[in-house]
Amino acid sequence: MPFADRLNNVETSAIRELFKLLGKPGIISFAGGFPDSAMFDVSGIQEAVNAALASEAGGALQYGATEGYNPLREQLASFMGTKGVAGLKPEDLIVTTGSQQALDLLGKTMIDPGDKVIVEGPTFLATIQCFRLYGADLVSAPVDADGVDTDRLEQLIAEHKPKFVYLIPTFGNPSGAMLSLARRKKVLELAVKYQTLIVEDDPYGDLYFGDAPPPSILSLSADVPGSRDFIAHCGSLSKVLSPGLRVGWMIAPAELLAKATMCKQFSDAHTSTFAQATAAQYLKAGRMPATLANVRKVYGERARAMGDALRRELGDAISFTQPQGGLFFWARLTGANGTVADGAELAKRAIEKNVAFVPGAPFYAKDPDHATLRLSFATADVAKIEEGVKRLGQAI
Amino acid sequence: MPFADRLNNVETSAIRELFKLLGKPGIISFAGGFPDSAMFDVSGIQEAVNAALASEAGGALQYGATEGYNPLREQLASFMGTKGVAGLKPEDLIVTTGSQQALDLLGKTMIDPGDKVIVEGPTFLATIQCFRLYGADLVSAPVDADGVDTDRLEQLIAEHKPKFVYLIPTFGNPSGAMLSLARRKKVLELAVKYQTLIVEDDPYGDLYFGDAPPPSILSLSADVPGSRDFIAHCGSLSKVLSPGLRVGWMIAPAELLAKATMCKQFSDAHTSTFAQATAAQYLKAGRMPATLANVRKVYGERARAMGDALRRELGDAISFTQPQGGLFFWARLTGANGTVADGAELAKRAIEKNVAFVPGAPFYAKDPDHATLRLSFATADVAKIEEGVKRLGQAI
Repeated sequence: MPFADRLNNVETSAIRELFKLLGKPGIISFAGGFPDSAMFDVSGIQEAVNAALASEAGGALQYGATEGYNPLREQLASFMGTKGVAGLKPEDLIVTTGSQQALDLLGKTMIDPGDKVIVEGPTFLATIQCFRLYGADLVSAPVDADGVDTDRLEQLIAEHKPKFVYLIPTFGNPSGAMLSLARRKKVLELAVKYQTLIVEDDPYGDLYFGDAPPPSILSLSADVPGSRDFIAHCGSLSKVLSPGLRVGWMIAPAELLAKATMCKQFSDAHTSTFAQATAAQYLKAGRMPATLANVRKVYGERARAMGDALRRELGDAISFTQPQGGLFFWARLTGANGTVADGAELAKRAIEKNVAFVPGAPFYAKDPDHATLRLSFATADVAKIEEGVKRLGQAI
Repeated sequence: MPFADRLNNVETSAIRELFKLLGKPGIISFAGGFPDSAMFDVSGIQEAVNAALASEAGGALQYGATEGYNPLREQLASFMGTKGVAGLKPEDLIVTTGSQQALDLLGKTMIDPGDKVIVEGPTFLATIQCFRLYGADLVSAPVDADGVDTDRLEQLIAEHKPKFVYLIPTFGNPSGAMLSLARRKKVLELAVKYQTLIVEDDPYGDLYFGDAPPPSILSLSADVPGSRDFIAHCGSLSKVLSPGLRVGWMIAPAELLAKATMCKQFSDAHTSTFAQATAAQYLKAGRMPATLANVRKVYGERARAMGDALRRELGDAISFTQPQGGLFFWARLTGANGTVADGAELAKRAIEKNVAFVPGAPFYAKDPDHATLRLSFATADVAKIEEGVKRLGQAI
């Protein structure tokens, strides 16, 4: 059967092959990008769906507006208000089927084959593939512990004139990095100077373990005149409440939002109103602050345990910055004293020792660093984390 | 902001503009394509979501496989078995976010800009726009009361060598037509003869009012050697249970299903597991036969009432075939005795009389018949149908 040419731009990922091995009995996995199912607020979600079916079954079960179910748009606008985005109106955002769909809509709305798009190196794997399906020519901007290198980013914008720049500035997947306040402001200045759309993907910003991170690029746009017209912001309930609801949202300038809505109409008509009404009732019930406090506490403990164990068991064979939030450690093998220096090779040896993680190379759109790896601390408890890292130490 | 060129292929539809007028107080609407909210089995869905959260909260709220939630795939395979599709395995189908997403995935997987795709004239409006966003050059095959004219279809396939043929063979939107058994078999022979993919979109096939329609093209493929390799079939719970769940499915040859799954991974990762687990529990509880019996009965009464009223109030100013199922009358204005012969003009006059319907011209990808119109009998009760058609008679 003759398929479309765009499929030639993507390939089955190395990570998918790895995931097939995860069913092995007794394995401890740091490979996933999932939150921990044990932390879902099941009773809160049950109450929310009960309230939705009792008070608004017609809306919750019927077709809905492509832009999103209005009670949820109102709750999300007010949720964003609690996160420093002032004056947001429900019509300033659309609901998406997870924030993955926001990426797809950005691709469909913006990318012509051959267009340049700048992403971080490393960045979210499904972003790379999603944009490539629309024919994007991806350019990779380097990341350090303070997030994307904005001097290098400016050079790349000037050189490539990209359709847009895609960033995960806060506890990014996989880098775990937190873009500094100064760099956030620089990004906003670049948006205005080069009249370039900046996409801020922010599924992890609520998952901080100590002090709150700097305000989002979206909220800081209030301080940089003209910048708001060039910011799209993607949010999600997946990491803090439940991925299974598939409730994300996108805030963007009105014209972009209208075009994305038209594309969404022909992608899935609208996001499940059943899930949207449930999420709206959940937010309305005021449960989110306690839910956030709980996930921050548990993931924070696990992150500390993993950092301690990595230092103890792997010593100078590995280097990393302790993440201040999110779900991931991003680390680099040093090769010290003849230890393994290739992430894919270590991943193979680790599976033999019954511990799994994801090598870092596939997260680069260009010029992969093969010494890198990503470790998730989200789904294993502290005891499993300590045992798993011990096995890593044996594998290395 | 510079958007992608593909957006130039679609336009805001005339129908959307009309829908803005539907908020007018006192209006009786035959315009929607919605099922009636009053008929949703709310208590059955409440029990289903309770069961899902009680017994499988981890699965229902967590990320899931892109292909679909396995308990739902099992239920859907067995549901298709009750509809004459023998031997279907869960892995022969993927779950989609409504059947709209199946159309989007077919577009993404199959259509290169400039590719020919054959659709019925008239066909579903969101199909036209969805495929055009991928750059399809649509070719329109004429429909009569027995569905698509298969002789003409064969000529068009031979002439245009389309990427695929898209049909809504059973109570199609908007035509309401039922493809005859003989023509279904002819379609299967054409698939084999021209090695051409046939997409059978079937959201309405369960909504029959008297005798069951002929078996689906998919189930008849068992009788035509080699044809099954060229059939994709899209199903949906939207018209019979609830559109708000956004649960559809696609059955297709393995290679196409794998490519569509890859595209779906980057479109929305997966369909809401919360909705999928609820739908699976609903099907498992055995409620579907009673639900289907109920919607068939109520919509059947409304269809009979609308047909009687149209004959009584509009007489020879209108011609139509009484639909045997689905949600729609497709009618043609005759202009007899100087009555209005243009669907758009009548729609305007009808709004002044407080009754709404959709003119037929936008449903044609090419060469619209401006005398046509679509009337939905789904959401108004019998008394409102009689009153609304009386107003139509005044408007004409």
